[in-house]
Amino acid sequence: MRFYSDNNATVCPELLAAIHEANSAPTRGYGDDRWTQALDEAFGRFFGTAVTVFPVSTGTAANALALATIVPPYGAVYAHDEAHVVRDECGAPEFFSGGLRLVSLPGKGAMLDAATLERTLDAMPPSVHTVQPTAVTITQATELGRVYPPAAIAALARLAHARGLHVHMDGARIANALVTLGCSPAAITWEAGIDVLSFGATKNGGLAAEAVVFFRRDLVRDFELRRKRAGHLLSKSRYASAQLLAYVSTDAWSRNAGRANAAARRIGDACGESLLEPVEANEVFVRIGEPAKAALRAQGFEFYDWGAAQSGEARFVASWDQDPRATEALCRALEAL
Amino acid sequence: MRFYSDNNATVCPELLAAIHEANSAPTRGYGDDRWTQALDEAFGRFFGTAVTVFPVSTGTAANALALATIVPPYGAVYAHDEAHVVRDECGAPEFFSGGLRLVSLPGKGAMLDAATLERTLDAMPPSVHTVQPTAVTITQATELGRVYPPAAIAALARLAHARGLHVHMDGARIANALVTLGCSPAAITWEAGIDVLSFGATKNGGLAAEAVVFFRRDLVRDFELRRKRAGHLLSKSRYASAQLLAYVSTDAWSRNAGRANAAARRIGDACGESLLEPVEANEVFVRIGEPAKAALRAQGFEFYDWGAAQSGEARFVASWDQDPRATEALCRALEAL
Amino acid sequence: MRFYSDNNATVCPELLAAIHEANSAPTRGYGDDRWTQALDEAFGRFFGTAVTVFPVSTGTAANALALATIVPPYGAVYAHDEAHVVRDECGAPEFFSGGLRLVSLPGKGAMLDAATLERTLDAMPPSVHTVQPTAVTITQATELGRVYPPAAIAALARLAHARGLHVHMDGARIANALVTLGCSPAAITWEAGIDVLSFGATKNGGLAAEAVVFFRRDLVRDFELRRKRAGHLLSKSRYASAQLLAYVSTDAWSRNAGRANAAARRIGDACGESLLEPVEANEVFVRIGEPAKAALRAQGFEFYDWGAAQSGEARFVASWDQDPRATEALCRALEAL
Amino acid sequence: MRFYSDNNATVCPELLAAIHEANSAPTRGYGDDRWTQALDEAFGRFFGTAVTVFPVSTGTAANALALATIVPPYGAVYAHDEAHVVRDECGAPEFFSGGLRLVSLPGKGAMLDAATLERTLDAMPPSVHTVQPTAVTITQATELGRVYPPAAIAALARLAHARGLHVHMDGARIANALVTLGCSPAAITWEAGIDVLSFGATKNGGLAAEAVVFFRRDLVRDFELRRKRAGHLLSKSRYASAQLLAYVSTDAWSRNAGRANAAARRIGDACGESLLEPVEANEVFVRIGEPAKAALRAQGFEFYDWGAAQSGEARFVASWDQDPRATEALCRALEAL
Repeated sequence: MRFYSDNNATVCPELLAAIHEANSAPTRGYGDDRWTQALDEAFGRFFGTAVTVFPVSTGTAANALALATIVPPYGAVYAHDEAHVVRDECGAPEFFSGGLRLVSLPGKGAMLDAATLERTLDAMPPSVHTVQPTAVTITQATELGRVYPPAAIAALARLAHARGLHVHMDGARIANALVTLGCSPAAITWEAGIDVLSFGATKNGGLAAEAVVFFRRDLVRDFELRRKRAGHLLSKSRYASAQLLAYVSTDAWSRNAGRANAAARRIGDACGESLLEPVEANEVFVRIGEPAKAALRAQGFEFYDWGAAQSGEARFVASWDQDPRATEALCRALEAL
Repeated sequence: MRFYSDNNATVCPELLAAIHEANSAPTRGYGDDRWTQALDEAFGRFFGTAVTVFPVSTGTAANALALATIVPPYGAVYAHDEAHVVRDECGAPEFFSGGLRLVSLPGKGAMLDAATLERTLDAMPPSVHTVQPTAVTITQATELGRVYPPAAIAALARLAHARGLHVHMDGARIANALVTLGCSPAAITWEAGIDVLSFGATKNGGLAAEAVVFFRRDLVRDFELRRKRAGHLLSKSRYASAQLLAYVSTDAWSRNAGRANAAARRIGDACGESLLEPVEANEVFVRIGEPAKAALRAQGFEFYDWGAAQSGEARFVASWDQDPRATEALCRALEAL
Repeated sequence: MRFYSDNNATVCPELLAAIHEANSAPTRGYGDDRWTQALDEAFGRFFGTAVTVFPVSTGTAANALALATIVPPYGAVYAHDEAHVVRDECGAPEFFSGGLRLVSLPGKGAMLDAATLERTLDAMPPSVHTVQPTAVTITQATELGRVYPPAAIAALARLAHARGLHVHMDGARIANALVTLGCSPAAITWEAGIDVLSFGATKNGGLAAEAVVFFRRDLVRDFELRRKRAGHLLSKSRYASAQLLAYVSTDAWSRNAGRANAAARRIGDACGESLLEPVEANEVFVRIGEPAKAALRAQGFEFYDWGAAQSGEARFVASWDQDPRATEALCRALEAL
Repeated sequence: MRFYSDNNATVCPELLAAIHEANSAPTRGYGDDRWTQALDEAFGRFFGTAVTVFPVSTGTAANALALATIVPPYGAVYAHDEAHVVRDECGAPEFFSGGLRLVSLPGKGAMLDAATLERTLDAMPPSVHTVQPTAVTITQATELGRVYPPAAIAALARLAHARGLHVHMDGARIANALVTLGCSPAAITWEAGIDVLSFGATKNGGLAAEAVVFFRRDLVRDFELRRKRAGHLLSKSRYASAQLLAYVSTDAWSRNAGRANAAARRIGDACGESLLEPVEANEVFVRIGEPAKAALRAQGFEFYDWGAAQSGEARFVASWDQDPRATEALCRALEAL
């Protein structure tokens, strides 16, 4: 019974059907196909504003390409210390940009807050001797399963823009956040001041379907050359684009995220006081001690350790296709601890 | 009627079935799945020797990662002037390696030859002031649809190895070459001295299925970190790996390539004296004049211009799923010119 | 009366004489001269062990080349948050290495301590998803004018080596530290576990004379190619090398540093309770309030603000050629505050 | 008797005096000194137009920083196959820019010509798949001791600008070219269409004194950050700047170059039919056979081999401080061959 990660999940029927539909006949390569060509309009409808959209095959590529496009090699990017770009991408932003600096900041629930960012910027006045403050990146939902409310994003973005910084969002789990907030996709992105978004579908039912979405279309700049140069221009782009179209044009994104979130909430409820963070998306973080973890594993539950070695912490991630019986079994086992 | 490129083709039934099969249940991410874990063995059987194999999603990524792993930032890589790494990757090898130098060489049919390579190496004795000769890369089949016989590869590799250079093969169309030669996969790779291979399946029936194959397994070095850092470690690796397994474990590779080659040969036969290169794989290069090209296009044939502007040259590429009626129609139209 | 920085100082007589001596006749370029050839032996005597030494023209180049040689593009380097590599090099280590990550750590007096480093390493177990812990860099004397005792360096180096990390020292002001400690150059470098040293002479009487000193000579690797490629192989190397030879072969280094340290100590004594850090080298950090700073400036004293805007903090740096009358005038003015 | 290279030469009296003059008192670091601040005006007078000038310590740094500032990582730069940037900088332009492509072109006397450039550009129409044509770089005097007349430069620059390319000149030996042409510095630089110049003084009497001169001042862009980040912002910039000021404000540049050129011309005259290139600057290229080379060396003449191994070719370089007796001795020995 797998609670390792939502990247363990299968591809959902709508997106698999979209791949089949895109396979009906030959078509032009490198994005000159009707699926890729339709992305701007479909995402424009989804977000309620004009956007420029580029499909890529991984979230790391989306983040690193987005940042490298808007940040020079000597730029500083402010990010939470738990952010995927900081912890889980083997230095991809540094690589893609030619050496940008990620400045790690603290914050509850893996969320940045405007006050911390402001203090940091005040303490690092740029000169020719320093890296140059250029962007902020936040993750929605965060690496600790928390969700930024629109106002928190807007406060960060206001500060960032006032200081001349661009604002990027890592939306690997944006669908989970949207379902929790019940707000429009616009409310947590461009309306709140997000300039560029890494939009993820892979964790929520896709095969390999991520997108970079530019709300500030002037920031597209040389993105297409950087993508090609990084080996991320897919020759058969239509298969990624077809997934993305199906994802935002049907309710696949919300239904899948809704299922995952509900399962996580159910698990969170079963954790009681051991819960480390409120469950706001599809991830659950607990401190139950090493013996309890061993006991759960003995019962067939699979999940990752969390925190430092021997911290007794664990992470459970629920996926769109999580078997309800597995979820219930885990809840009973947690309650029995 | 499309003769643009084999990347316009659809996904073949065997590989689509493999995707479905990999979708039957959740599994571990990032390559810790049974499909990815089986790649070394399956490719080992295919090539008749122990190999280490990594799936990636594009040929550009395969080439650039392979070269960056075996070449330092100040390394020189010798390649044909028409090679994909030189002409069609927007500088990906330079980017992935941190600035390697591609030294472009001439050669008939987009093939390197040992004599040219030797003269070039002799004329550029390395010192601390120069880029350092490190690798040779050849393309099989070449960008002009030609096929290196095993002995030509072996001659190049012998020279390269004697000079301390590694040998890489861009095998985006290796299946087409193998079908033409009728030899074993070993004969044109490790037996001939290839150290690392970019193995392509996308153009020949895959969705997005390329692999880097290390015959010199000690050269794997930090490949996995470089791949992750470049955003090319797929979280749901199983879907690429399942395609690759199906491709090399069934006769999909040879049947698909055989069909494409046969169509190209048929087209080549129809070209008569206008043929620029012998047709040895699935590409046909002709000089028929701009009026003839316009006439063909008016009849619904789609293909790329070749050579300089107004050269009257054209390229026709046949795919595994080329409609035989389209091929016949093109042949008749060419014969009628 | 200048207390801005020791880089405001002039060139001392011994080093200027060395430049003249090196100018007596033509000689080979790019280091094939007798001054450069003598560096290994002279520095070997200075440090009491066999070393390999390379002259460069700036401290930033020394640090960045040293780190890029021993750290891969995806490596993590642990440094104090106040370190020159972190604050004052515009991202040079990231640039030279192709994207390494500087992990900033806290520590009193801008000194790293082994306990903090250990906690940090424990909290970041490396995997293919993370940057790879590779090196620690410390600054002697530190950016806050403090000096690591040999035992503190040894404790850090022991931990680092036990974890497989290399240890680099930024010795832009190593002479000032040596004079304070009264120990041998060996005691705070290779005997304490330093693998590679950026050795600075520019701030202490040189024109442009820095060196990278490898105690672990196997770590030299491709340093020479990286230096050339970075434009730091001087065609007329002899002028830098002659300065370095004079610096370590005479008592210029100790006499110059002794003068600067004495002046700083005198200033520190005049600061009383406003002192922020013990004065252990040639820098003095105080919190005296903005009005007092304005008053000092009105009297003709030149110095940099320190800390956040309006913090009332200031930095005074004493140089080898500091006019004793200026020092005395500053002391009296400080005492009068 | 040294004819290896002009980088073997000593520092001339005027520039050594300038170093002394700059050493009279402490001053601000990092270019905030009166010598560095005076560069724009002094070079403006020298070139007869407003310029922005930055001192650096090597010609490789000047070239690589200039190109990296005006060329993106995926840019193509057209250069002669014998150019210093291609042959002698260990890939510095690729490193500084993050991977630009140097496209090597042929041309007599190591000179590019407009027709070859035009053919090359026509044959490489840019798309998202290719590196992007961005700049041309030429060397004055060339690596084969030839000098571009103003009209040849203007023809190249006109073509380059018409195609949207910037034009850079490597002026490591620009003084030698100016003396030969007898024209104004303007005539072979901005008046002919040069946008950015690497201005060399080191080979012609400097200690380490090179400059990047922007005629297109809008192209300065982020040059200062790139220079700092590359370790090429000298903390004691005044010593380089003082040399540059003396060089362009006195007749040191022309007198030194005149001497070197005259010596080379004298040597060239002695070579007769063995001369490979007309002697237009301070370098002489001959084919005299290996036995003759051995004989010359036996008589104490030092010089580099040229061309392929056993080609019988040699290079003699004359310096500003070449001993006339050595020159005469060489001439007699050559005539005696």
